[in-house]
Amino acid sequence: LLKVLRINAKTRKIDVEQYKDEYRLLGGRSLISQVMSDEVNPTCDPLGAENKLIFCTSLFAGTPLSAAHRLSVGGKSPLTGGIKEANSGGTTATAMARHGIKMIIVEDLPESEEWSLLKISADGTPELLPADEYVGLNTYDMVDKMKERFGDSVAVTAIGKAGERGYRNSSLQSIDHATGKPSRAAARGGMGAVMGAKKIKAVVIEKSNERYAFPYADKEKFSAASKKFAEILRNNEGMKWLHEVGTPAITEITSGMSVIPYRNFSGETNKKASAIGPGAYMEKIHSRGGKTGETCQVGCVIQCSGCYNDANGEYLTSGFEYETVALCGSNLDIDDLDVIARMDRLCDDIGLDTMETGGTLGVCMEAGKIAWGDGEAAITLLEEMNEGTEFGRLLGQGTYEAGKALGVKRIPTVKRQSLSAYDPRNLKGTGVTYATSAMGADHTSGLTLEAPIDPLAVEGQADTSKFLQPMMAIADSMMCIFNWFSAGSPETIPGLMEGAYGGEWDFDKVLGLGREAILRERAFNEAAGFTSKDDRLPEFFLNEKSPASGQVFDVKDEELDNVFKY
Amino acid sequence: LLKVLRINAKTRKIDVEQYKDEYRLLGGRSLISQVMSDEVNPTCDPLGAENKLIFCTSLFAGTPLSAAHRLSVGGKSPLTGGIKEANSGGTTATAMARHGIKMIIVEDLPESEEWSLLKISADGTPELLPADEYVGLNTYDMVDKMKERFGDSVAVTAIGKAGERGYRNSSLQSIDHATGKPSRAAARGGMGAVMGAKKIKAVVIEKSNERYAFPYADKEKFSAASKKFAEILRNNEGMKWLHEVGTPAITEITSGMSVIPYRNFSGETNKKASAIGPGAYMEKIHSRGGKTGETCQVGCVIQCSGCYNDANGEYLTSGFEYETVALCGSNLDIDDLDVIARMDRLCDDIGLDTMETGGTLGVCMEAGKIAWGDGEAAITLLEEMNEGTEFGRLLGQGTYEAGKALGVKRIPTVKRQSLSAYDPRNLKGTGVTYATSAMGADHTSGLTLEAPIDPLAVEGQADTSKFLQPMMAIADSMMCIFNWFSAGSPETIPGLMEGAYGGEWDFDKVLGLGREAILRERAFNEAAGFTSKDDRLPEFFLNEKSPASGQVFDVKDEELDNVFKY
Repeated sequence: LLKVLRINAKTRKIDVEQYKDEYRLLGGRSLISQVMSDEVNPTCDPLGAENKLIFCTSLFAGTPLSAAHRLSVGGKSPLTGGIKEANSGGTTATAMARHGIKMIIVEDLPESEEWSLLKISADGTPELLPADEYVGLNTYDMVDKMKERFGDSVAVTAIGKAGERGYRNSSLQSIDHATGKPSRAAARGGMGAVMGAKKIKAVVIEKSNERYAFPYADKEKFSAASKKFAEILRNNEGMKWLHEVGTPAITEITSGMSVIPYRNFSGETNKKASAIGPGAYMEKIHSRGGKTGETCQVGCVIQCSGCYNDANGEYLTSGFEYETVALCGSNLDIDDLDVIARMDRLCDDIGLDTMETGGTLGVCMEAGKIAWGDGEAAITLLEEMNEGTEFGRLLGQGTYEAGKALGVKRIPTVKRQSLSAYDPRNLKGTGVTYATSAMGADHTSGLTLEAPIDPLAVEGQADTSKFLQPMMAIADSMMCIFNWFSAGSPETIPGLMEGAYGGEWDFDKVLGLGREAILRERAFNEAAGFTSKDDRLPEFFLNEKSPASGQVFDVKDEELDNVFKY
Repeated sequence: LLKVLRINAKTRKIDVEQYKDEYRLLGGRSLISQVMSDEVNPTCDPLGAENKLIFCTSLFAGTPLSAAHRLSVGGKSPLTGGIKEANSGGTTATAMARHGIKMIIVEDLPESEEWSLLKISADGTPELLPADEYVGLNTYDMVDKMKERFGDSVAVTAIGKAGERGYRNSSLQSIDHATGKPSRAAARGGMGAVMGAKKIKAVVIEKSNERYAFPYADKEKFSAASKKFAEILRNNEGMKWLHEVGTPAITEITSGMSVIPYRNFSGETNKKASAIGPGAYMEKIHSRGGKTGETCQVGCVIQCSGCYNDANGEYLTSGFEYETVALCGSNLDIDDLDVIARMDRLCDDIGLDTMETGGTLGVCMEAGKIAWGDGEAAITLLEEMNEGTEFGRLLGQGTYEAGKALGVKRIPTVKRQSLSAYDPRNLKGTGVTYATSAMGADHTSGLTLEAPIDPLAVEGQADTSKFLQPMMAIADSMMCIFNWFSAGSPETIPGLMEGAYGGEWDFDKVLGLGREAILRERAFNEAAGFTSKDDRLPEFFLNEKSPASGQVFDVKDEELDNVFKY
């Protein structure tokens, strides 16, 4: 039977519970929203005893569907003060699914200063092991140590120094299947600090001796739908660039639209964007023995992962995504991919969100702390975050607080979370998503880049976000959203649901699961003290015209307030 | 006629308006609440163009009533994100009243980088003068420069480097009548940063050629009530210690009750409190030619101000209050009054709130950044705030953010504002006030130290705060609250209102003005996004027993939520 591990960090007691039947139509983001509303006091201190750290798998985990194994990490965010679900690829969700573990819930706070590993053995036994010897290691070293101790096939999700120190910018890093490196980040919202508060340095899962058998309602129906899904994926022209290049492919599109952030969201066009564009990226990959078209987890048809080598042909980083290129590159006016790749590696190693980090360095540059385009200076600040200097600890609090302390007025955050890599004046639907998502500024909640709407028009943007947000909420709960983009449709998803879970499904019923998740998230945030006043973009996007387009963000507050009126 | 100066910081236009008749029963805190609700967008950026900086005088300004000239400074607070009224003694409100200026409103933001003085000449002409030459001066030097330039009788309210740099901990400092030094602080909520954002370095008011005549409804009635008020004051035994010692007198009482904060609100008794108690204080004053029983403004009967000299008998500081002794002393386990006095001087000079500063240094000590009791290290951190080092700028953001960046869990703030000098577990009614006041943790909103109730009982605390808060809101709007404590009663206040403003008054009608002010403040905060979730003390006061008393703060949330149901 599908299991839930409940770990009390104070008593060190571990309960193995049965996964509740009423949770069976939930997974990933939708499951986190339910458990948070069932179990967590919305007004709790995110780093206090009442918050919980929840790991879970997506809805189709345990099935052979393409990219069905996302790891979701949930809790109350120390960055936003609201509900948070951050998810990532990598091997951990697959390892959980094979053990038949749907969810791991870590509760309370330890009374001692001792750190622990949460280890799940090949036979399924969970235990807390002493981990003081690993404190102070960053994630690359941590993964090496875990492989030395438990073998190469182990799955690891670990925090680095950022999470240990309670930075509000702190991720959980999981192992990328292709490279074996901890380059897959559940990045947003500072969930690494929640893990750090509970003094869990890593979750380590040995490969299961027995493989949990998914209890299909109708296995044949599922297989048929799954095959159909894979076939659509394979034939989707639009997705081939993801396989061939990876997410950095879109740099060309977003710079052409002046959507890529440039110099702390100045709204100017980055005229040097081609230096960090897909052509330059692929040239670096190919000339140095790097790779694209790899997979972060077993069983993905798209395979958008890559490996970026340095000038000597040595591994430098992987999971090097568009958002990082845009925020640690273009947003800082840094046009050297090697420098940006080093920043990506450092973020993964320290356990930092590359988006929040790029936003933070952007306000440092705006304050004149370091010069625009000075990549080495940017890396020096990352080193300060690593070392935990006084300034480094301030930067670790994220863009909002760094900006405030430096006296910066243009701070690109919503609910104190850094905007990802789309200027909301020139992609207004995404601005609506940024403003209104319970997660804080987050493109995965509803990116409108490919929506059939003029990105500069006012009309229809709120409706586009209104349509996309529940869809992305359920997509994110089911599988990797890149897979959903290509093949998630009325043709495939209802069949997958019927085959896996039974009952009768149509697409709107599926979207209903997304709407319900969003309403639970909103209710949590409301109980935590959020109001419509928190569903707003920073003033400067409303007052300062983008020099590239002459546009401000002019979707009306009333429209923002209607996005969740279903 | 009574005037309002409206200054546009962008266009540099100054309008002289007539004070609205519908505002005539308002002053100080109650007037700020009205103007904020009439003119300021609650969701604005506190340091942005939409916020306003409001200076006004109290309700009886312009009359000879004892201590009738408080300067109120209002706007949306960069520290709390809510409405803020901070007030102080000193000579500025008297200077305004003599010019017949009820209110000064500074709007918008300058487009250039140039700083200004707002100067009001002896003939009443207001103008903006270039002030770039004064940028970087702290308030003591600034006052010297203004006296050199405009003469010794000028009134000055200035910001120091804290306000210039936008610290969320930043005050406005006004001149103390007795010493001529800028030791009178409108301290709380970072209003200095609002002034800094508008690039006003100081408000400078020359002594009026003509004295504005208060338009009494019944001058004889007012004079009779005012004399009665002064007589009660003079004969009030309880207030004599304020004249003789000043506010540091209560150190003995609060340490006896284990109410004085010790080591970052540990809840322990400060066993060394006598070293900073009134005996030690008076010994330092008397042996070095210091003074007590002085006045911060002309026409106060109580005269609680003093002057603290250093070991060489040279002036060191003035306006050296209990809150400073408690938060920069006891809370840091510093028991050397000379060191605490140096901290007080530095705070006044840089333009920092001594309470917020003491709270901030408390979390630094809790984090192990400097040692408990290490006064020289504390002063070094104040110097960092003065110099604007990276760490100094973080500390300038106040206790909440410094605590977060340093990974401290016990952060003594409400609505992100530091608690003043009373442990809410051992003075629970004040805990109710801290939790619920729209101002953030603030004792002047309703201190229960002398309330006839067991400070450790649960029952009755919310009712005590419920009774006190409207009373303090109107007291603070009328005069210095120390005067009100002694003589503000049904016997005196209705007569003062009838004499000054006409109509028929009883005490409850007066309290009604306080209730209305509070409801306007609450409505502003609600529109700014505050909910009942913001009306709570930090978790640690609810979970950690005070070792001195065994008490936690156990007033129920429902009771907190009823405090403003009139």
